[in-house]
Amino acid sequence: MPTAGILVIGNEILSGKVVDTNSPYLCRELRALGVDVERVLVIPDDVPLIAREVAAMSKAFDYVFTSGGIGPTHDDLTMQGIARAFQVPIERSESIANRLTRAIGSELNESQLKMAEVPRGAQLVDVGDLWFPVVIVENVSIFPGIPELLRKKFESIRQRFKGVPILLKRVYVKRRESEIAESLNDLLGEFPELMLGSYPKIGEEAFHVLLTLESRDAGYLQDALDALLARLPEGSVHKVE
Amino acid sequence: MPTAGILVIGNEILSGKVVDTNSPYLCRELRALGVDVERVLVIPDDVPLIAREVAAMSKAFDYVFTSGGIGPTHDDLTMQGIARAFQVPIERSESIANRLTRAIGSELNESQLKMAEVPRGAQLVDVGDLWFPVVIVENVSIFPGIPELLRKKFESIRQRFKGVPILLKRVYVKRRESEIAESLNDLLGEFPELMLGSYPKIGEEAFHVLLTLESRDAGYLQDALDALLARLPEGSVHKVE
Repeated sequence: MPTAGILVIGNEILSGKVVDTNSPYLCRELRALGVDVERVLVIPDDVPLIAREVAAMSKAFDYVFTSGGIGPTHDDLTMQGIARAFQVPIERSESIANRLTRAIGSELNESQLKMAEVPRGAQLVDVGDLWFPVVIVENVSIFPGIPELLRKKFESIRQRFKGVPILLKRVYVKRRESEIAESLNDLLGEFPELMLGSYPKIGEEAFHVLLTLESRDAGYLQDALDALLARLPEGSVHKVE
Repeated sequence: MPTAGILVIGNEILSGKVVDTNSPYLCRELRALGVDVERVLVIPDDVPLIAREVAAMSKAFDYVFTSGGIGPTHDDLTMQGIARAFQVPIERSESIANRLTRAIGSELNESQLKMAEVPRGAQLVDVGDLWFPVVIVENVSIFPGIPELLRKKFESIRQRFKGVPILLKRVYVKRRESEIAESLNDLLGEFPELMLGSYPKIGEEAFHVLLTLESRDAGYLQDALDALLARLPEGSVHKVE
């Protein structure tokens, strides 16, 4: 099954000025596609650091997604970092420069032209009505930090990342986690391939713990669900969905 | 100035089932205290991985904060990972076991007693009305994933992390980022110590870019703000706060 790492680049996230909504979005979407996200990392706008982490993630995972640090300002260093990660130069893409000229016209300035600079060998993928393409270098898809643009761009290339979808059942339980922990351990003994999560909720009236059961195999998932329901104390299940 | 790393432990975040609100909270609070958060990393519930990342972060940063993976169930592996990071055994804390016995009484079971197991040498810090203490190992503060509990625990020990607070000014600009990018580069030439952020906003009527200026030095910050306002085109500032 394909794996992924998400690299969020931006001082604004680390300093608490902006909340990163991009990595939660990508985690949800990739899960729905059947891709296992194994790492989310937030780092400052720093070329050597971007280079090191992109190189490491590109080796470790099938797909890498970056968010942030592309644009016309001083702190937009992602393209430089990614070029260094793959030891290629940055160069001006005539294709992007032409699009910039068409979109902006004669007022085009140097800062804007900076946005046409990409690592050599980058693949450019056009996105419907956006004039700026998605830039992909090796297995790294480069997205902007602005959530609306990131989503539009991801949507346009999502079919490239399709794995085997993971099926999910949720069981809401009216007992405390510590009261059912042994049942869960026993269940995992019986179904070692089951992905089982247990999440206590504070402030909920109807249940205390949300259990999630996941598998790529529908039959295995149903058998595990049946076994769990048989193990839980009578009357302890609020609902199953 | 003190630095920090935040390690979020939990498959539920990576699979998109739960949105991590703990790291944004810690980023904001630590910034207000004057601590530089340099890394946020989300990893799965996996002992060798937790051990490796805790060891690396503990060396790299003054403070490390972990969120998640403490509790009575099969996927709560944070204490084991941290013990391995510092090459100490896990052992039962009689102090925590006694609190558990007082809180739960004779119904205390083995799964609950698992919560009394901490790395040898751990420091226990009592938290007001919570029966479970904050556990600190070396420079690593260990927090639960449940946001209400994490906040209560962080609040109780926040004064330990006090640095020199960072002062912030926000300037809302009615131009596009690419139109002011050169002014920003010039400003940074003049004020190299300034922490300057530039964040385009889509869908805002009143402004296009939020600029943030930060410094620990109030005079330096004011000088940089004055210089910025003089550089921006006339009539381009929506507001300053």
